[in-house]
Amino acid sequence: MCAKKIVGVLGATGSVGQRFILLLADHPDFELKVLGASPRSAGKKYVDAVNWKQTELLPEFAKNIIVTECKADAFKDCSVVFSGLDSDYAGSIEKEFKEAGLAVVSNAKNYRREVDVPLVVPIVNPEHLDLVGQKLDAAQKAGANRPGFIVCISNCSTAGLVAPLKPLVDSFGPIELLTATTLQAISGAGFSPGVSGIDVLDNIVPYIGGEEDKMEWETRKILGSLSSDNTTVVNLPDEDMKVSAQCNRVAVSDGHTECISFKFKNQPPPSLEQVKKSMQDYVCVAGKLGCHSAPKQTVHVLEQNDRPQPRLDRNRDNGYGVSVGRVREDPVLDFKMVVLSHNTVIGAAGAGILIAEILLAKNYI
Amino acid sequence: MCAKKIVGVLGATGSVGQRFILLLADHPDFELKVLGASPRSAGKKYVDAVNWKQTELLPEFAKNIIVTECKADAFKDCSVVFSGLDSDYAGSIEKEFKEAGLAVVSNAKNYRREVDVPLVVPIVNPEHLDLVGQKLDAAQKAGANRPGFIVCISNCSTAGLVAPLKPLVDSFGPIELLTATTLQAISGAGFSPGVSGIDVLDNIVPYIGGEEDKMEWETRKILGSLSSDNTTVVNLPDEDMKVSAQCNRVAVSDGHTECISFKFKNQPPPSLEQVKKSMQDYVCVAGKLGCHSAPKQTVHVLEQNDRPQPRLDRNRDNGYGVSVGRVREDPVLDFKMVVLSHNTVIGAAGAGILIAEILLAKNYI
Amino acid sequence: MCAKKIVGVLGATGSVGQRFILLLADHPDFELKVLGASPRSAGKKYVDAVNWKQTELLPEFAKNIIVTECKADAFKDCSVVFSGLDSDYAGSIEKEFKEAGLAVVSNAKNYRREVDVPLVVPIVNPEHLDLVGQKLDAAQKAGANRPGFIVCISNCSTAGLVAPLKPLVDSFGPIELLTATTLQAISGAGFSPGVSGIDVLDNIVPYIGGEEDKMEWETRKILGSLSSDNTTVVNLPDEDMKVSAQCNRVAVSDGHTECISFKFKNQPPPSLEQVKKSMQDYVCVAGKLGCHSAPKQTVHVLEQNDRPQPRLDRNRDNGYGVSVGRVREDPVLDFKMVVLSHNTVIGAAGAGILIAEILLAKNYI
Amino acid sequence: MCAKKIVGVLGATGSVGQRFILLLADHPDFELKVLGASPRSAGKKYVDAVNWKQTELLPEFAKNIIVTECKADAFKDCSVVFSGLDSDYAGSIEKEFKEAGLAVVSNAKNYRREVDVPLVVPIVNPEHLDLVGQKLDAAQKAGANRPGFIVCISNCSTAGLVAPLKPLVDSFGPIELLTATTLQAISGAGFSPGVSGIDVLDNIVPYIGGEEDKMEWETRKILGSLSSDNTTVVNLPDEDMKVSAQCNRVAVSDGHTECISFKFKNQPPPSLEQVKKSMQDYVCVAGKLGCHSAPKQTVHVLEQNDRPQPRLDRNRDNGYGVSVGRVREDPVLDFKMVVLSHNTVIGAAGAGILIAEILLAKNYI
Repeated sequence: MCAKKIVGVLGATGSVGQRFILLLADHPDFELKVLGASPRSAGKKYVDAVNWKQTELLPEFAKNIIVTECKADAFKDCSVVFSGLDSDYAGSIEKEFKEAGLAVVSNAKNYRREVDVPLVVPIVNPEHLDLVGQKLDAAQKAGANRPGFIVCISNCSTAGLVAPLKPLVDSFGPIELLTATTLQAISGAGFSPGVSGIDVLDNIVPYIGGEEDKMEWETRKILGSLSSDNTTVVNLPDEDMKVSAQCNRVAVSDGHTECISFKFKNQPPPSLEQVKKSMQDYVCVAGKLGCHSAPKQTVHVLEQNDRPQPRLDRNRDNGYGVSVGRVREDPVLDFKMVVLSHNTVIGAAGAGILIAEILLAKNYI
Repeated sequence: MCAKKIVGVLGATGSVGQRFILLLADHPDFELKVLGASPRSAGKKYVDAVNWKQTELLPEFAKNIIVTECKADAFKDCSVVFSGLDSDYAGSIEKEFKEAGLAVVSNAKNYRREVDVPLVVPIVNPEHLDLVGQKLDAAQKAGANRPGFIVCISNCSTAGLVAPLKPLVDSFGPIELLTATTLQAISGAGFSPGVSGIDVLDNIVPYIGGEEDKMEWETRKILGSLSSDNTTVVNLPDEDMKVSAQCNRVAVSDGHTECISFKFKNQPPPSLEQVKKSMQDYVCVAGKLGCHSAPKQTVHVLEQNDRPQPRLDRNRDNGYGVSVGRVREDPVLDFKMVVLSHNTVIGAAGAGILIAEILLAKNYI
Repeated sequence: MCAKKIVGVLGATGSVGQRFILLLADHPDFELKVLGASPRSAGKKYVDAVNWKQTELLPEFAKNIIVTECKADAFKDCSVVFSGLDSDYAGSIEKEFKEAGLAVVSNAKNYRREVDVPLVVPIVNPEHLDLVGQKLDAAQKAGANRPGFIVCISNCSTAGLVAPLKPLVDSFGPIELLTATTLQAISGAGFSPGVSGIDVLDNIVPYIGGEEDKMEWETRKILGSLSSDNTTVVNLPDEDMKVSAQCNRVAVSDGHTECISFKFKNQPPPSLEQVKKSMQDYVCVAGKLGCHSAPKQTVHVLEQNDRPQPRLDRNRDNGYGVSVGRVREDPVLDFKMVVLSHNTVIGAAGAGILIAEILLAKNYI
Repeated sequence: MCAKKIVGVLGATGSVGQRFILLLADHPDFELKVLGASPRSAGKKYVDAVNWKQTELLPEFAKNIIVTECKADAFKDCSVVFSGLDSDYAGSIEKEFKEAGLAVVSNAKNYRREVDVPLVVPIVNPEHLDLVGQKLDAAQKAGANRPGFIVCISNCSTAGLVAPLKPLVDSFGPIELLTATTLQAISGAGFSPGVSGIDVLDNIVPYIGGEEDKMEWETRKILGSLSSDNTTVVNLPDEDMKVSAQCNRVAVSDGHTECISFKFKNQPPPSLEQVKKSMQDYVCVAGKLGCHSAPKQTVHVLEQNDRPQPRLDRNRDNGYGVSVGRVREDPVLDFKMVVLSHNTVIGAAGAGILIAEILLAKNYI
C-alpha cells in the first residue's frame, strides 16, 4: 500500500476549513499536515487558534499542528491544498500557490468562471478534471516543471441542482427551461457572524447576494463539456439550459432544499417513470473509480409524498448523496420535483475531498 | 348611526374561530353575540370552553357568552355567521344554516368549487358577491323568503397569490403561465395539534395535502368572472391562467411567502416599471366602499432587495395588505417576484370579516 | 396644553435607537427632533442612514431628519436625550452631554454603578429619580446653571426580575436568597450581527457575557434606597438580596423568561396566596402619576399552568407589564415562579421612555 | 463466541420503539427478531406499519419483520424485551410479560415507583440491577421457574441530572439542596403529534406535565441503595437530596440542558477543583464491564465558557456521555453548573440498550 499523500488546508480556522479538517481525519488517502490561516493565527497551535464549532470534536491529530501563514513555501510538500479561504483573500493566495506548482482545490468563487479552470461537482462532471490532465501532459512533453493548477468547487445550491439533472440531460437531451426556488440552510454562511439569528427566527430572507446569478451561470459550465483539445470548458449555450433561480435563506442548519420545474428541449419529453428511473439508476464516475467518499447511491428518488426533508434526509451517503422527491408532471413546464443536498458536504468542503480523491484515482496528483 | 349587525361564529373554539373573535372585538359594524362549537363545549362559558392561544388576550365581551351547539335556530338573529368549522363538519352544518335563510361566510373548503358559491378574496374579487345580490333580488321579485347563502373564503396561499395578479391581469391581460413555490407558515394548520414541532424545527416539509391543487384551481375561479345573469362564476380557462404550485411548510409562525414567476399571454409583455406601477397603484374596491378593514395600500411594492420578510412585513395594514418584492425580469417566463401575505388575516378569518363588511356596504346583509 | 418637549436620540441607527424612534412616534409628551449617530451616518437623511429592521414601518416623521454627529451642541434644545449608544462610545459621549447640562436617559451600562447615578426600572424604583431632583434643587439654590445628569436604564433581564420582587419586598421584607435561570431572547443583542443564527437554531447558548454579574449586582441597587440627603443610591446589603443567576440565550425573538426561586429573610414566609395577591395588587408609581406608557396592570399573575409564554404574553400593556406564572411553593427555598418581561420594552428603550415621562411628571425636565 | 441473544421491542412503531430499532441494528450482543405494536399494525410488514421519522434510514433487517400484537407468547424466545409502550398500555402489557417469565426493560413510567423494580440510569446505578440477580437466585434456590422482571429506564431529564451527581455524592457525601431549571428538547415528546410547532417557534412552554415531580422523586430513588437483602430499593431520604425542578420545553430537537445549583450536606464543601475532578474522573461500571455502548468518558467537564450546547455536544460518546460546563461557585448554594444529556439516548431508548448490556454482562439474562 502506498503512503498517504500529504495535504494542507488554507483558511483552516474558518467554517469551511473546519469541515475540511473533519473530513480529512482518518482519511485513507490523505494525511493533513499543514494548516494555513491569517497572520493573527499563525504561530499558534491549531487548538488555540480556532473557535471550533462543529458537532464532532476537534480531531486529536489537528490540535497541536502549528498554524502557518498562507504562503506557498510552507505547503510545498502537499499533493493537494484545500482552500476554504474567503474570496477577499483567495484570489491572490490561490494564484501564488498555483504558480508555485501546487494543486489547489478551492471553495472560493474567484476562479470559477475562468475557462481553463474546471468547476467541478464530483458526482456530476469529474471528466472536466481531464483539463488538468492535459496540462500535466503538455508540461511533461515540454519538459517543463509540473504545473500547478486550481480546481473550483461549485456554489452549494448549484451542486444540489445539477446532480439530478446530469442523468436527465445524458439520457434525454438538453433542458431548455428550468426554474428553481431554493430554501437554503444557514451553515453555508459561516458563523462569524454568518446569518443573524433575528433574520431566520420566525422568518425567511428572500435574498442571498450573488446566489441566483451563480446558479444560473455555473449550471451551464458544470453541465458543459471540454473543448476537443481538453484545454477549456465550453459552457452549455443559453438555449440548452436557461435557468431562473429564486434564493431564500431559511431556518435550517444544514441542507439546501430546491423546488424545481423544467422542460426538455426534445419534445415529447420522456415519461415520468423514465425520468425517475434515469435518476435512480445514475452511478457517478467517482463510485466507479472506487473513491472513498463516493456515494453508494448518487441520487435517491424518494416516493413518500412528504420527502425529502432536510433534517431527515441530508445525511444520506454521509452527505454525498442527493435526494429527490415529489417527482411529478408539471402543468407549466414538463416536470417538477424537490431536490435536497447537503450544502457543506457535496456543496462545499466534502466536494473538495471527493475531487481530490478523483484527481488521485486519475493520477493527476 | 345604525345599530350594529348581530353576528355569530361557528367553530368558535378552534384557531380560526378565535381569530374571528379577536377581529370582531370593538368592530364598528358587527356585534358578536352567538358562539357555536361542538356539543362538548356547548353550555359552557366561552372562557371555560376555549384553550385560548392568541397573542392578544381573550376579549372581555366574549368570556361569558354561553357556547351553543351549531344549530341554525340559535343563530337566527345573526345577519352573518362566520364559519371556522373544520371541513369534516362544515358541509352539513353550513348547508343547514343556508337553508335556514342565514348568510354564511366560511373558511372551510367544502363549497368553494360550487359554481353558484362565490369564492372571494375581498381585496381581489368582491364583485363576485353580486351573485348573492342576484339571488336576493330574484327572491324578492318572486315574493319568496330572503334566501340564505354561503360565501367562501379562499385558501390562504391562493389569497396571497391573486392579490398582486389582479391588477396585472386587469391591465395587461391574461397570465398564460405561472409557477409558484410557497414557504407557508404553521399558524394556518391550527394548534391541536397542528404542525408538529419536530417537523419544522431545523426542517422543511415539502408537502401540504391538497394545497397545490387548491392554488392551481382556486386562482382560476377567483380571477374568473360572473356569468352575464350573475348566477354562476365562470372560471378563467386553463389557457388564460395555468398555475403550477409547489407548497412547503416552514418554521414561520404567520405569513406565507411565495416565489412566483409568470408569463403574460399578450406579447411583448409590459415593462418592469409598468408591472410594478400597476401593482402599486391598485386600489381595491373595499377601500373605495369605505370598509373598516380595507387596507390603505392593497399591494406594497418593496424596493429593498431582501424584502418582503414575514417577521417584518406580514402586519402591513393589519395583515390586509400584501407585500411584493424583488420584482424583476425572469429568464424563463416574463417576470419573477416574491409575494408575502398574512395567512390568518387576508388568507382566512380576516378575509371573512372584510367580506362581511363588503356585503354590508352592498346591502346584501 | 403645553407644547411637547423636544427630545433627541443618540445611536439612532442601532437597534435600541430604532426602538426609541418607534416609541416616540406620536408620543403625547415628546417630539423627537434630533437623531445622532456615527460620523459615517451624519449628514444623511435618517431613511438613507438606517437599515431599518423593525416590524413596524419607519415612521414618516423620522425619514427626513438629517442625522447629526453625537455632539452636545446639536442637542442643546432637547429636554431629554435618549441614548442607545454602544458601551464603547457611551462613556465619553454621555459624559460630554451631561457636562453640557443635558438630561441623558441611557441604555448603556457605563454609568450604572456610579453611586450618584440612578439605575431605574420605571415600574419599580422611580423614587430613585429624586436624586436628580436633589441635584436640580441644589443647583438652583446655589444659583448655578441647571445641571445635566444621567439616568441609567437597567439591564434587560434585571428589569424583569425586580418587577415582581418589588411588591414582595415592600410587603414581606428582604429576600435573603434568590436563584434565577434565564431564557433570554435574541433581540437584546441587536442585529449587526447580534446573535448568530447557527447559535440559536436547534440550540441554546448557556452563557451571555457579563449578564449574570449584572443581574446579581443591579438587583441590589434597584431595590436599594436613596441616602437620607438624596445624593446617592444605597444598595441593599448582600444579606438582604443574594442573587445567583444562570443566563441562557434561546431561540426567542422578544421576551425574557426567568425561572426563579427565592427565600424571604423573615420566617415563616407569607402564604402562597399572600405572595400572589401582593404581586397582583401592585400599582406602580408611574401609573399613579398618569404617565402615558405606564402599564394598566404592572404584574400579571397568571393561573394557567403553562403560562407565561413569550410569544403569547410578552406584549401585555404594550410590553410594560410583566407576567408571572406557576407561582408555587419551592421545596428548597420558599417559592418558585416563572417571570416573563419584554426585553426591548421594559428592559431597554421602553423603560427609557417611561423614565422620561416620570421625569416630566416630577418636573425634573 | 456465543450466539447473539434474541430480543424484541414493544411499541415498535412509536418514536421510542424506532430508536430501539436503530440502536439494535448491528448490535454485537442482541438480535432483534420480534416487533410488537398495536392491533392496527399487527400482521403488516414493519416497513408498511411504521411512519419512520428518524435521521437514519430504516435498517434493512427490520423492514420485513411482520409486526405482532403485544402478547407475551410471541416474545417467548426473547432474552430481553424493550418496551417503548405508551403509559396507557404499558401497565397491563408489561405485567403480563413479566408474569410470563420475560425480562422487560421499559421506558414507560408505570412501574418506576415500585420498590422492587429497579429504576436505572445505566451510567449511574447499575448496582440496582442486583435486585434482579437476587430474584433469579431465590427462584433457582426454590427450584422455581426463571422469574420474569421489569427494569425501568428513568425519566429523561432525571437521567441527565443524576449522571454528574453520582460521583459527587460518592466522593463528598449527600447533596442537601438542589435546584434545577431544565430547557428540554422536543424529541422526547414523540411526533404524533408531540409538541406542537406553534408552541416552540419563537416561544418557550414553561411547563411539562408531571416532569418536575419525576425529577424530584426519581433522583432520590436512583441515588438510593438496595436494602441489605437486595430485595428493594431504598430511596435517599428527603434531607439527603431535596430537589426543586422547573421544567421548560424549548425549540431544540435533541438534548436536554439543565442549569443546576446545589449545596452539600457536609460543610465546608469540597473545592471547585475537587468537584470538577470528581466528575471528570468518574468511570461508570458499564465501562468497566466492557459493555458495547458504555461511554468512553462518562462525564465531560468542559472549560469553554459557552458550553455545553445541545447542537454541538449532545452526541458525545454516541449520546451516552453527559457534558457539564460552567462549573462555578454559587452565591446562594455551593456550586452551579450546566448539564447537557441526550434525552433519547441516555434518557430513553439508549439507556434501555445499555441496561440490557449490563444485565448480560452480569448474567442476569
